[in-house]
Amino acid sequence: MLETIGAQAKEAAFVLGKTATVKKNEALSAVADALVAKADTIIAANEIDVQHALEAGMKSSLVDRLKLTKERIEAMALGVKQVAELDDPIGEVIGMKLRPNGLKIGQMRVPLGVIGIIYESRPNVTADAFSLCFKTGNAVILRGGSDAIHSNLCIGEIIGQVLEEQDLPKTCIQVLKDTSRETATELMRLNRYVDVLIPRGGAGLIQSVVQNATVPVIETGTGNCHVYVDDSADLDMACDIVFNAKTQRLGVCNACESLVVHKAVAQPFIKKIAERLQTKGIELRGDEEACSIVETILPATEEDWGTEYLDAILSIKTVSSIDEAIAHINRYNTKHSETIVTKDYNHSEQFLKEVDAACVYVNASTRFTDGFEFGFGAEIGISTQKLHARGPMGLLALTTTKYVIYGDGQIRE
Amino acid sequence: MLETIGAQAKEAAFVLGKTATVKKNEALSAVADALVAKADTIIAANEIDVQHALEAGMKSSLVDRLKLTKERIEAMALGVKQVAELDDPIGEVIGMKLRPNGLKIGQMRVPLGVIGIIYESRPNVTADAFSLCFKTGNAVILRGGSDAIHSNLCIGEIIGQVLEEQDLPKTCIQVLKDTSRETATELMRLNRYVDVLIPRGGAGLIQSVVQNATVPVIETGTGNCHVYVDDSADLDMACDIVFNAKTQRLGVCNACESLVVHKAVAQPFIKKIAERLQTKGIELRGDEEACSIVETILPATEEDWGTEYLDAILSIKTVSSIDEAIAHINRYNTKHSETIVTKDYNHSEQFLKEVDAACVYVNASTRFTDGFEFGFGAEIGISTQKLHARGPMGLLALTTTKYVIYGDGQIRE
Repeated sequence: MLETIGAQAKEAAFVLGKTATVKKNEALSAVADALVAKADTIIAANEIDVQHALEAGMKSSLVDRLKLTKERIEAMALGVKQVAELDDPIGEVIGMKLRPNGLKIGQMRVPLGVIGIIYESRPNVTADAFSLCFKTGNAVILRGGSDAIHSNLCIGEIIGQVLEEQDLPKTCIQVLKDTSRETATELMRLNRYVDVLIPRGGAGLIQSVVQNATVPVIETGTGNCHVYVDDSADLDMACDIVFNAKTQRLGVCNACESLVVHKAVAQPFIKKIAERLQTKGIELRGDEEACSIVETILPATEEDWGTEYLDAILSIKTVSSIDEAIAHINRYNTKHSETIVTKDYNHSEQFLKEVDAACVYVNASTRFTDGFEFGFGAEIGISTQKLHARGPMGLLALTTTKYVIYGDGQIRE
Repeated sequence: MLETIGAQAKEAAFVLGKTATVKKNEALSAVADALVAKADTIIAANEIDVQHALEAGMKSSLVDRLKLTKERIEAMALGVKQVAELDDPIGEVIGMKLRPNGLKIGQMRVPLGVIGIIYESRPNVTADAFSLCFKTGNAVILRGGSDAIHSNLCIGEIIGQVLEEQDLPKTCIQVLKDTSRETATELMRLNRYVDVLIPRGGAGLIQSVVQNATVPVIETGTGNCHVYVDDSADLDMACDIVFNAKTQRLGVCNACESLVVHKAVAQPFIKKIAERLQTKGIELRGDEEACSIVETILPATEEDWGTEYLDAILSIKTVSSIDEAIAHINRYNTKHSETIVTKDYNHSEQFLKEVDAACVYVNASTRFTDGFEFGFGAEIGISTQKLHARGPMGLLALTTTKYVIYGDGQIRE
């Protein structure tokens, strides 16, 4: 069955790849309108999923993520309209150069082709991922979680109908009915038809895709993010940044999970930040020195340094130098987002150069790692791998290039 | 054992990543000198490999690829010197933009980290791949074929000694002594330490890496390349291009393996090209129409359309339109290099836009797909995948970027 779905996606991608921007934007706009117009149908399908979730005893926070309301559907539709308004990167030709033999060689930006998205509960990903893939000329195969299957199929069906009305292949979007693990694995190995896989979800899902896929994967983001408070830091600024990075939103990949503090400022700074974080009930786990400064800090274990809590917990490590800070961060981080707070020029440049992560900050909160905050107008995820795309991924991450070469009869001697 | 090698490579990469360009260039120059100075040692080691190959009854063409002479070692050293002279892409910051909140966000070009190269017989790849990885600040783990193990280890040892003399980690290059399949598979799954794998060799090797690796792979090139002769083509030009693309060098990935001809010009053109190719003893295999035009053309089977011969054979397909030509090419090609010969403006643009390949040409031989011909001054391989790098890969393909963000205390509201 996946063979057929793959072949259909490839055919749809060929048609979509040569569709004019205006036409794609009209279709996206019509999709947004249809989602709002058919909100009741979507809510009815979603209620089946919610009912199943409640019967299965799903945690209320997860049920909440699963639940669609009129307002949420409107927000989803607005997201699709916003993607329609973004510039279309497809077709641009970059760096056309004339070679000594008269060949003109440039790189044309083109769609990737067929994108597989493997995701978990939230059904809004269905419309969201579709719109980004569609805008960039890619057909998409969506494999959501079984929890949200009725919602996902319903949204996929509505979008497919609109595409058909717009004389575009409805197979530009295909939602897999079968949410079994076997079918997911088959999708991960469908190299003949699928050009790239993007897993969106928790660390378990992402690792399963990395381990099982033969199709190239864009690994998206777990974030064990650090803030390093340098000996020269403005401690008020450092306190604001750590407080923001840890507490502005718990449970997101760009939240701070670990604080690294230079020993020269450990005494005043750890007291100050512990007091501030206490107002939000954050649990602190520190090394020996940190524990000796504030008695409510619990002893951290080796495991703490490598843990992305996604919770109201912060680990605290003290260091004797910026080199030690950088070594600690590079050892335990997940290559996501790292910040130094400093007034020292050399330390700022060293940190930017030597820390191995998708986003390295001086004097700012790690929470800015986000496609919208970076000005991309969209985000398909945050890549923590090094190939193809690194950091927040906007529309460009869903494209590739091909060399186009204009000749007048050149042959190789 | 690979665990240790991986950890050593990671450490070496950290040191090399912050080494100044001048220092890297001096080391490369010293490596080139040492290769020439120790040519006798390399030749002695190589003779063991050659002797084993002869005893094992290796084909003489393969023995020739394995064999190192003084001239070949000098050419190898010259290649290393040329890499030293190329611009260093590391450290460049691209597109620094000021956001409304005062954050300055740019992308710094940085090394990938640790690169694993898995390759077959030719021992010159050892020095070649090392020099490109080293120039771009990457540590390299080389897993060559067992045929060339003595040569590879000897070259690796000489390079490592030079690095040590230059106060750089000798583990910037590590040649695996163990050439077993198990160790290769272990390398392909060493995600903790290896950032990317580049297989260099035949289709079997590349597929084995794609199927077994969990480390991201840059797939390099098998090439089932087509030349399409349009109804509006200048037939003399078409004849020169096909002749060049097929015969200038057999057995290379950018050679033409299949000719697609519009039926309107099939009669004169197939006669003309068949006569010309006969002078080089090229076997022709065609569809029914092609066979009806020249009687020495053998009937092609379905398998022929998808075959990269790497040999003195060319398949010939006739089509009724450019659309049919494009559909045929997209169905059977390996996404490498494709050419249209035409005088029609609309056809040239349609072909460039709709053919799915790393390099798409108008009126030029497919043989130009090459890092040197494209002006990169180097080539680590030709990528036929769509992620990260597509087409000939020079130094840039061995780098990634990280976002660097300059703030003055920004926190997210």
